[in-house]
Amino acid sequence: MSLLESIKGPDDLKRLDAAHLSSLADEIRDFLIDAVAKTGGHLGPNLGVVELTIALHRVFDSPRDKILWDTGHQSYVHKLLTGRHDFTLLKRRGGISGYPSRAESDHDVIENSHASTALSYADGMAKAFELRGEGDRVVVPVVGDGALTGGMCWEALNNIAEGKDRKVIIVVNDNGRSYSPTIGGLASHLAALRVTPTYEQALDLVKRTVPRAPVVGNVAYEALHGIKKGLKDILQPQAMFEDLGLKYVGPIDGHDEQAVEHALRKARAFGGPVIVHCITRKGHGYSPAENDEEEQFHSPGPYDRETGVQKPKGRIWTDVFSEEMVEIGRERRDVVGITAAMLHPVGLADFAAAYPDRIYDVGIAEQHAVTSAAGLALGGLHPVVAVYATFLNRAFDQVLMDVALHGQAVTFVLDRAGVTGDDGPSHNGMWDLSLLQLVPGMRIAVPRDGARVAELLRECLAVSDGPTALRFPKGAVAADLDAVDRIGAMDVLARHQGANGADVLIVAVGAMATPAVEVGERLAAQGIGATVVDPRFVKPLDPALPAAAAAHSMVAVVEDNGRVGAVGDAVARLLRDEGVDTPVRTFGIPQEFLDHAKRDLILADCGLTPQDLARDITEAVARVTATDAHEPATSD
Amino acid sequence: MSLLESIKGPDDLKRLDAAHLSSLADEIRDFLIDAVAKTGGHLGPNLGVVELTIALHRVFDSPRDKILWDTGHQSYVHKLLTGRHDFTLLKRRGGISGYPSRAESDHDVIENSHASTALSYADGMAKAFELRGEGDRVVVPVVGDGALTGGMCWEALNNIAEGKDRKVIIVVNDNGRSYSPTIGGLASHLAALRVTPTYEQALDLVKRTVPRAPVVGNVAYEALHGIKKGLKDILQPQAMFEDLGLKYVGPIDGHDEQAVEHALRKARAFGGPVIVHCITRKGHGYSPAENDEEEQFHSPGPYDRETGVQKPKGRIWTDVFSEEMVEIGRERRDVVGITAAMLHPVGLADFAAAYPDRIYDVGIAEQHAVTSAAGLALGGLHPVVAVYATFLNRAFDQVLMDVALHGQAVTFVLDRAGVTGDDGPSHNGMWDLSLLQLVPGMRIAVPRDGARVAELLRECLAVSDGPTALRFPKGAVAADLDAVDRIGAMDVLARHQGANGADVLIVAVGAMATPAVEVGERLAAQGIGATVVDPRFVKPLDPALPAAAAAHSMVAVVEDNGRVGAVGDAVARLLRDEGVDTPVRTFGIPQEFLDHAKRDLILADCGLTPQDLARDITEAVARVTATDAHEPATSD
Repeated sequence: MSLLESIKGPDDLKRLDAAHLSSLADEIRDFLIDAVAKTGGHLGPNLGVVELTIALHRVFDSPRDKILWDTGHQSYVHKLLTGRHDFTLLKRRGGISGYPSRAESDHDVIENSHASTALSYADGMAKAFELRGEGDRVVVPVVGDGALTGGMCWEALNNIAEGKDRKVIIVVNDNGRSYSPTIGGLASHLAALRVTPTYEQALDLVKRTVPRAPVVGNVAYEALHGIKKGLKDILQPQAMFEDLGLKYVGPIDGHDEQAVEHALRKARAFGGPVIVHCITRKGHGYSPAENDEEEQFHSPGPYDRETGVQKPKGRIWTDVFSEEMVEIGRERRDVVGITAAMLHPVGLADFAAAYPDRIYDVGIAEQHAVTSAAGLALGGLHPVVAVYATFLNRAFDQVLMDVALHGQAVTFVLDRAGVTGDDGPSHNGMWDLSLLQLVPGMRIAVPRDGARVAELLRECLAVSDGPTALRFPKGAVAADLDAVDRIGAMDVLARHQGANGADVLIVAVGAMATPAVEVGERLAAQGIGATVVDPRFVKPLDPALPAAAAAHSMVAVVEDNGRVGAVGDAVARLLRDEGVDTPVRTFGIPQEFLDHAKRDLILADCGLTPQDLARDITEAVARVTATDAHEPATSD
Repeated sequence: MSLLESIKGPDDLKRLDAAHLSSLADEIRDFLIDAVAKTGGHLGPNLGVVELTIALHRVFDSPRDKILWDTGHQSYVHKLLTGRHDFTLLKRRGGISGYPSRAESDHDVIENSHASTALSYADGMAKAFELRGEGDRVVVPVVGDGALTGGMCWEALNNIAEGKDRKVIIVVNDNGRSYSPTIGGLASHLAALRVTPTYEQALDLVKRTVPRAPVVGNVAYEALHGIKKGLKDILQPQAMFEDLGLKYVGPIDGHDEQAVEHALRKARAFGGPVIVHCITRKGHGYSPAENDEEEQFHSPGPYDRETGVQKPKGRIWTDVFSEEMVEIGRERRDVVGITAAMLHPVGLADFAAAYPDRIYDVGIAEQHAVTSAAGLALGGLHPVVAVYATFLNRAFDQVLMDVALHGQAVTFVLDRAGVTGDDGPSHNGMWDLSLLQLVPGMRIAVPRDGARVAELLRECLAVSDGPTALRFPKGAVAADLDAVDRIGAMDVLARHQGANGADVLIVAVGAMATPAVEVGERLAAQGIGATVVDPRFVKPLDPALPAAAAAHSMVAVVEDNGRVGAVGDAVARLLRDEGVDTPVRTFGIPQEFLDHAKRDLILADCGLTPQDLARDITEAVARVTATDAHEPATSD
């Protein structure tokens, strides 16, 4: 039996002789490199925290003490050490989640993988333990250097510092490898050197890490990593954390398990809030992941273990946006790009390379991304804020008040909209079409295919009197689907005459257009007439829509967003307001948190396959035509 | 002609001999104390920035340079100096706004009065000026010490520091008098002493300010104001801002106009980002506002100038909540309160006084308020997060992901919901009923009167498996309105038999119940039957609602929230999903930004008076009963 197999939980780990820990770390790395090669997953971050995680579980008493993983994709080692050894269905239905999961284990606490939240949870939990007379329980948030750029961390530090007797140990996992980490005022001071059992090792790691400064750099990043000030200088003790009431321990070589254990025990003994600063290396121990300039091993798909070669990815929606932005940048000097620490994933890397003075990476700071975009627009430019759809939730107030109230022409490009699936409930982009409906003056474009990504991006950028948004899903871009006609500014994608009078207007939103066309064919095969339209813009809705609805027996709206407050509701409201009482049925994602699984499985669960939609619409048509809507209907 | 009357704009001010500035400041104070005595308004903050604002407009070239007021309620002096001298209708329809307003003046830039945003705007504007070759234009955000607790400020500082050549001059207006200011890491360093022409005066002001530490204190606050460390200590130069690349000038006595001018000119000459730290005194020059322990002169109603006595306020919705919380706190040890720097306004002051170990003031940090509440709940407590409805927008992601995804029992109490009116578009609480509808597992209670505030608060606190929200408006609490019956868990408030068969189900949300009862009477007088129900909880909707709807000819939903995605849409969706095609009409606030005016005027504009509602519902009933809904209706 291997060492790893013998670890069923933290108690087994604690019993292990320290001499064996290095072998255990090797086994864990070997396991991860092998397992993730088959399934894909967050390899790089997890290889970086092997020793750190071992040390955490040897020093603390989880689950009585609480280990909180900020942005939980680095919890694989934690899963192994808490008895979860089956990675064969990682991120798949029936398999373990790629993030902490309360359903899986008592050792998991935070399921949200949006960054920068763990310190706030920790503050609350420590307050609760104090009030309940359980003040000996330790709360240990583990946060990346990148996540510390988020404003929430600063809000939390301010509050954590207040609790002199609360046992909060903040572990900073500083791998210098997030997408453009920028950790500001904190960065300048993380280097305060108090306890340095492994000073030289840490120094060595810092040296190796420094050359990896991102292209779109930042003063704070540079300060942390000593580029500007020289390594000696940043390793001087400084007073900031003491002023705040936070003790500081570090920097520690995060790959020296005994050093990390020593630091954590020291921090634990102190009794109040402490910061423990660990320097780690993303991808440590697997050379393709260590030498990973383009972040290909942050979260690779399946790869060949020997060569590190991943299966080539096909053309995705992002690629179309990326190429069109480069072209638009050539034509227009006023267009600038903004990213919140995700230059490559959101498709702005080529734009940045072509126009380096017109790209701004603000750090993991969505609020600042949006409001600084309002400032750029007030200054006469047209900013494109490119962000994953789920992360725009973090800046709703800024979109509403700072951009829309001021009527500023900012374009939001929301990638990974709709069901993303395998990254679990906090990554699905199923909220944006509802949120943005609330914003006065917002125009929302939803492309159905690659040609429409380019076309609608240009239409958004032509708007000069208010905000616009363009949203598209994860994955392979849909094949182009030409219109056969137009109604108002809506594209008609298909028009089937019905055999028996009844007919349906299908309003297909974005990527749901392709299945909707198949739905139309299935209905037609049963003698039900169907007109399939793509409204292109779902806010405002086309003025021609009410009359088109009135000319049909029923309207079906199909979208890959939560059903509440999204396009279906908007269509129904428009018809009500116009006095059109044609029945409306809306098909979308149920307003629930969705367990991780492949996107197709989830869409099938939601009844959003062509087969399911055709069946449900057929039934609805039968009902509508059978009922006299003037008589009060009865409830199901 | 007085000096003030001679100032039509900044040019006049610049021409004024420095010897006259003290007289001008006196005239401005006199004007403000007099004008606000008649209308009410933000007196204290504006008395604190008289000299500061004079200095700003003498040094900078507005509107070419941009002066950005964070939380714009301290812009009255700015308005006077930019030619707006008529304060007779301050915050009323037809009068000047209580905040900067782009429609009023080219000198106004930011209309959003949510705190902590100005630095982000400034970063964007400075980037735009640089890119457009207008790098000589200066951007001057003015931010309070309290607002610096907001995470956005930290995100912005990180980015501003990056622009070595961008002219951003951050003026920190440190009056030590916000509700519980807590400015964290920055606070410990604001005191770095570089340029001190008026060192002694500043020191004196700090001394006078120190005793005003709020009850719910904070380490960072104490550090700034020297309580812990002694005044000498905090006035030592420190390296933080230089590390970040931000030059620091201060502290300056903000009531010494010449000193402020000197500091601003020095900052301007520097050419890169600079922080200018001014110590001011809220209410300076008017003793009732200076000696204002309970923040009565932060934003008083009309008052007697000689005595400082304000008209007593009647009993408001907040009072009922406040009293019930004290009672509940006595019964339940697990209930704790959280406020984001607004202990008094949200009605938690009495709870804090009664249970000082169970109240947490986190600073102007709504995100942390919500996520630390999730932590408190995970630790076994039941937190009540009390916040103005409009500010919950700033923490939507945290409500969704950190509280709801984790199924935590946190209760949100949303004050000033619906139309607040005179504070303009960024203060209306017209978004919450839509936003919270998106949150899986959220239960939303909307009390119609004082008795229901108490009753529903208890029902919310009895929920242990997920989040709850309770929302009520600004102003005098509605008289209790007893139910005559129940349908499911909905209160029936009135039931009028119709003379001609047609009848309407009126679903009245919260404070709209009182006018809805009058609507029912007006309809009945015309022979139209009406059942008026208060659903009490608007999410989830009562399972009995579809059958009740089906038993009527029409449903009318009346709410004081934006119409998009709110209760009206939820009712319509429920009926669609249940196959009930009874026509629905929804009445609420149009989804627009509303100009400032008294609440009643705005409600009348929205058609939400009993008269308007009765007329519109009568017309809708006539339409619905005249149209054969089976025939495709035609659009208006």
